[in-house]
Amino acid sequence: MSGNSMGLLFTVTSFGESHGPGIGCIVDGCPPGMALSEADIQAELDRRKPGTSRHVTQRREPDTVEILSGVYEGKTTGTPIALLIRNTDQRSKDYGNIADTFRPGHADYTYWHKYGIRDPRGGGRSSARETAVRVAAGAIAKKWLHEQYGIVIRGHMTQIGDIAIPFRSWDEVGNNPFFAADASKVDELEAYMDSIRKSLDSVGARLRVVADNVPVGWGEPVYDRLDADIAYAMMNINAVKGVEIGAGFGCVTQRGSEHGDELTPEGFASNHAGGILGGISTGQQIDVSIAIKPTSSIAQPRRSINKAGEAIMVETHGRHDPCVGIRATPIAEAMLALVLIDHALRHRAQCGDVHVDTPRIPGRIG
Amino acid sequence: MSGNSMGLLFTVTSFGESHGPGIGCIVDGCPPGMALSEADIQAELDRRKPGTSRHVTQRREPDTVEILSGVYEGKTTGTPIALLIRNTDQRSKDYGNIADTFRPGHADYTYWHKYGIRDPRGGGRSSARETAVRVAAGAIAKKWLHEQYGIVIRGHMTQIGDIAIPFRSWDEVGNNPFFAADASKVDELEAYMDSIRKSLDSVGARLRVVADNVPVGWGEPVYDRLDADIAYAMMNINAVKGVEIGAGFGCVTQRGSEHGDELTPEGFASNHAGGILGGISTGQQIDVSIAIKPTSSIAQPRRSINKAGEAIMVETHGRHDPCVGIRATPIAEAMLALVLIDHALRHRAQCGDVHVDTPRIPGRIG
Amino acid sequence: MSGNSMGLLFTVTSFGESHGPGIGCIVDGCPPGMALSEADIQAELDRRKPGTSRHVTQRREPDTVEILSGVYEGKTTGTPIALLIRNTDQRSKDYGNIADTFRPGHADYTYWHKYGIRDPRGGGRSSARETAVRVAAGAIAKKWLHEQYGIVIRGHMTQIGDIAIPFRSWDEVGNNPFFAADASKVDELEAYMDSIRKSLDSVGARLRVVADNVPVGWGEPVYDRLDADIAYAMMNINAVKGVEIGAGFGCVTQRGSEHGDELTPEGFASNHAGGILGGISTGQQIDVSIAIKPTSSIAQPRRSINKAGEAIMVETHGRHDPCVGIRATPIAEAMLALVLIDHALRHRAQCGDVHVDTPRIPGRIG
Amino acid sequence: MSGNSMGLLFTVTSFGESHGPGIGCIVDGCPPGMALSEADIQAELDRRKPGTSRHVTQRREPDTVEILSGVYEGKTTGTPIALLIRNTDQRSKDYGNIADTFRPGHADYTYWHKYGIRDPRGGGRSSARETAVRVAAGAIAKKWLHEQYGIVIRGHMTQIGDIAIPFRSWDEVGNNPFFAADASKVDELEAYMDSIRKSLDSVGARLRVVADNVPVGWGEPVYDRLDADIAYAMMNINAVKGVEIGAGFGCVTQRGSEHGDELTPEGFASNHAGGILGGISTGQQIDVSIAIKPTSSIAQPRRSINKAGEAIMVETHGRHDPCVGIRATPIAEAMLALVLIDHALRHRAQCGDVHVDTPRIPGRIG
Repeated sequence: MSGNSMGLLFTVTSFGESHGPGIGCIVDGCPPGMALSEADIQAELDRRKPGTSRHVTQRREPDTVEILSGVYEGKTTGTPIALLIRNTDQRSKDYGNIADTFRPGHADYTYWHKYGIRDPRGGGRSSARETAVRVAAGAIAKKWLHEQYGIVIRGHMTQIGDIAIPFRSWDEVGNNPFFAADASKVDELEAYMDSIRKSLDSVGARLRVVADNVPVGWGEPVYDRLDADIAYAMMNINAVKGVEIGAGFGCVTQRGSEHGDELTPEGFASNHAGGILGGISTGQQIDVSIAIKPTSSIAQPRRSINKAGEAIMVETHGRHDPCVGIRATPIAEAMLALVLIDHALRHRAQCGDVHVDTPRIPGRIG
Repeated sequence: MSGNSMGLLFTVTSFGESHGPGIGCIVDGCPPGMALSEADIQAELDRRKPGTSRHVTQRREPDTVEILSGVYEGKTTGTPIALLIRNTDQRSKDYGNIADTFRPGHADYTYWHKYGIRDPRGGGRSSARETAVRVAAGAIAKKWLHEQYGIVIRGHMTQIGDIAIPFRSWDEVGNNPFFAADASKVDELEAYMDSIRKSLDSVGARLRVVADNVPVGWGEPVYDRLDADIAYAMMNINAVKGVEIGAGFGCVTQRGSEHGDELTPEGFASNHAGGILGGISTGQQIDVSIAIKPTSSIAQPRRSINKAGEAIMVETHGRHDPCVGIRATPIAEAMLALVLIDHALRHRAQCGDVHVDTPRIPGRIG
Repeated sequence: MSGNSMGLLFTVTSFGESHGPGIGCIVDGCPPGMALSEADIQAELDRRKPGTSRHVTQRREPDTVEILSGVYEGKTTGTPIALLIRNTDQRSKDYGNIADTFRPGHADYTYWHKYGIRDPRGGGRSSARETAVRVAAGAIAKKWLHEQYGIVIRGHMTQIGDIAIPFRSWDEVGNNPFFAADASKVDELEAYMDSIRKSLDSVGARLRVVADNVPVGWGEPVYDRLDADIAYAMMNINAVKGVEIGAGFGCVTQRGSEHGDELTPEGFASNHAGGILGGISTGQQIDVSIAIKPTSSIAQPRRSINKAGEAIMVETHGRHDPCVGIRATPIAEAMLALVLIDHALRHRAQCGDVHVDTPRIPGRIG
Repeated sequence: MSGNSMGLLFTVTSFGESHGPGIGCIVDGCPPGMALSEADIQAELDRRKPGTSRHVTQRREPDTVEILSGVYEGKTTGTPIALLIRNTDQRSKDYGNIADTFRPGHADYTYWHKYGIRDPRGGGRSSARETAVRVAAGAIAKKWLHEQYGIVIRGHMTQIGDIAIPFRSWDEVGNNPFFAADASKVDELEAYMDSIRKSLDSVGARLRVVADNVPVGWGEPVYDRLDADIAYAMMNINAVKGVEIGAGFGCVTQRGSEHGDELTPEGFASNHAGGILGGISTGQQIDVSIAIKPTSSIAQPRRSINKAGEAIMVETHGRHDPCVGIRATPIAEAMLALVLIDHALRHRAQCGDVHVDTPRIPGRIG
């Protein structure tokens, strides 16, 4: 409970540093009897893997996952599933010169004051490398949610720096290095990212992640609301600075007559709520957006201090994503899956046998 | 753990329905030895109280709090502090006609499908009335944080509907019904709210809540990050649809050279991080913004369905805030206080004896 | 989480001091739709109530419970059920003289050093009065377990001081002040207790509590085993010093060929396991025994120290049970019920849809 | 939270099956800055290791531990410490014939009905092999408790089957295969164990574990009492059927005038409480006893059923401890250490700054 576990009933406990022996997690609470193999998890890991295009870090990590427990003859047994990803491309020397300084925008200063000790190699525990673990755990959650309920969780980038990316089709997301749902924007994005990289700078991003086919009735009433747990999950992703559900900040200028989604026998007339009312799912699409800050590691000189408190200049060379937001899409999907499976299990516990005659209306009118 | 408790070490467990006998909570984990009286709590409750201006609900609730336990001879004993607020102005008859219908934008439909039973009187458990409990619990947290660390938590409205409200001075916030930090905007806001009310509509809002003097080092590294717990807390407030820390969604178009706050021996040069790096406080001001949707209860006819699934029209008459965001300021302050005290205690547990020679730099340069 | 809550999914959070305004709890996680009234709870409270015979404390507390929330039109709504029992017979003056001393066998010394402040009136939070709250919460759990699964939870005294009390029939337990299952022992017990009281002393006790009709498959594999949670629950009862499951300490001298319960198609051949194997229920009777120490408050002079650390003598006059074990029977039943309902809900969450063709064998042959 | 984690602030989450790739755990919450190496942990593991005498299982497992994270340059960093022990001596063929049957006294029947799937190789998750993980985690806790507070945790066998083993000296415990504190009993015990083994049977045991130098004031008041958490921890050890604190079941026949430990300026006059009053440590020795059932795996034919529910006979051949209690001593020490460190951290959080002038009296007079 010291900030490395998430979930009440489907609990992921994570470990590992960027340049230690490995990273991994224990997934406790996965229901028994689901087919699961390392390949199922690897497929999701490969979507987040570094080195897949020139627009992301060139660190070469195969990110190969090993299942250490909890699966017998290809099926989950209901006991903890331990996952291990060995670190292979560690190059500690890249980081030696930063052990006594605090990089702007990084957790160096805060870790140092909190713990009094800091693993400076690649950011140690604060490295975004840890997010591979979430993608691995999320792959298990995603699979279960899909098999049990037909739930589909998908994400796409909606903005990179100054360039907005419209939604055209889910089919396009997997075919470009930007998780863009509009392939016609890819050339522009490539040129834009190249210019950012050449200017030794980085840029922020915005992405959207949605879940379809979530049943009505998941969530809690006061705390642990479904939207609150989603906001918690998203803000736990490195570099995220904002979270929106449905209309998000757009609701500030809406009128109640516009925002409140009307119900009809044929379905909801709109989805400004983003699929959640009173902390509980409506059966509409769960719709989440997040803002991701620009990469803090840039090769420009920046002011900082050292451990003695003296003024210094810092430049961070190395293999950094110029836009950390790009690889965040599979991470955000994973986090949404982890929240949903936890609430799926909570719902079975508390209200699993509830039945009402009222029909469940469809998500959206035709 | 069914969605009515918050906090690991400073735990608030809430109960109560809008029109039941009362609402209240148990605050477990308050350190012993702090002076505490009902008056300390009442002062905060009065800031949230309904009926204080024509721009909020006219329901008349004195919201008088009784301390049932945990205080002996005027001091906290370290044992649970139970708080009870009896409901007095219940008028159940106002709500009788909605028992069989689902109001758009409300939790009626989701509660019904989740629980199979619903207390329709004033929204029952989903009523914003429950937020009084958080304000009461937050008052205890605020007092302890201020006495132990000099922490000051304050909020102000930054936008109501189409009207942005600049920050001028904290001194002005308490002197107008809008929690506006710029008194010169009050006339415009009054006219605006009157027009909204006359049009039988409601409007969204945006507010900001900050904490000064938070020490560096509070928070957790991967999950339960300080910003994640804040996002969770804020999104648990009824009607909140978005949360930002520091630059928030503004970071999307920032460059890394702008966003990453430089450190100097005299202090941080900026605070785009909003006082949190790597999930842990930097010692700068914690800076949070939230979006609050327009009140769902409006007196216009709206499409909905009844329990049989048939199309109906619903108008919600009664005593509703035309902008629920207005009274949300003390609630957001309370939620921030609850998150901070929990992390204060966690920090004492895990790292309370850590000392480093590196000086803690001030929040902001000159 | 500061030691006043119990249960993961059916969570009881308790508050209150012996001589404060009242005691009570919040029960969070009770499934919706169960009929529940104050009378259902009162019936259990009356079994624990003081003043019912000359062998228990003569304090007169009606222990009248009020349901503050979570029940609508006579049914649980799935939201928190808050219970309040006002204190009425407080006589603070009885306890004034002990504020500066530490009574042997009591929590005075430990509370003082832990919290630095202590409510000395009637033991404050450490008073056995708090156990009324558990009986109230346990009544809700018992009702649900019986309605859903036909589970019956019952207890009886098996020894008071030197007098062993054989089991004859459940029908006799409710008809005597000792919760004895053999009415023929009552005269002997009455004379024995009178002699203890006359000698200004107190005596220990042993009791047994069982649950019938618990399905096979409840519990967890490594931690949170069903027997571990039962041991935890029982040892949380004031004055309990030992817990046994099934054969208990008798297993030390057993051989494996005797202890290991054989299975036959007609049922288990014995129940040395006490209904739990590998932390998970077998479908046999859950069988628990506990040891309760003699009342610490006795009217004999005893050596102690005061707050200054000086030697003093203490006599505790007042209205004390000469054998606190006697009234512990309904408390132990309640605690067992609270553990079982929590595991019932956990089971629904994780394995609720598991089905195997293997028949579930009955508890015991013939 | 599905039964594989223990501890609120010092949390151990365990994984692994007897014959899977490995077992291990994540230790989350270890304070930063403590020197820690694999050798520190290995020393404790070797005390529990199989194959060290003819009186324990002949399975050959080196039980070599690898630290995967949380330690940097020989010191804990405050981040999760992941431990991995690869399984090496797995001989799956030994267990193939039991996949369709339920061994008496084992978890086979309960796991099957709970999960609907069961890893039969060596008991899978229910194997006592998992306890190696607790010993490893406990080694970290023990080291911290000793370095911070001088706490010493030790255990010894007090009875094996019919043979009581008096306490003579801690020095003797490590010099014989029985964890006996009286070396003069070793010959008798060896002969006794040989006879048990020859009769193809097994036998129960009783052991005692104590902690010295625990400060006054650790524990919680109502639930999560120190004794309750100890009872929980002990009953979570495979095969434990009873737990006693201090006088334990002996308190049943004690008078209050005997049981209640008197206080004097020179110290407590006795320790019937076992070092805990009102759920909180007194500063005396924490004194715990447990009963361990005889090994369930014996080579005699025993009645059982198969998955079809038909009657069969089962004999369990293989490499089993004839008295599982013997190797439980280091496990019980580890579990006590895990409870104590968790309460040490809780105490720092809630009451770390409490000071009273009352002197803390020593554990025991003279």
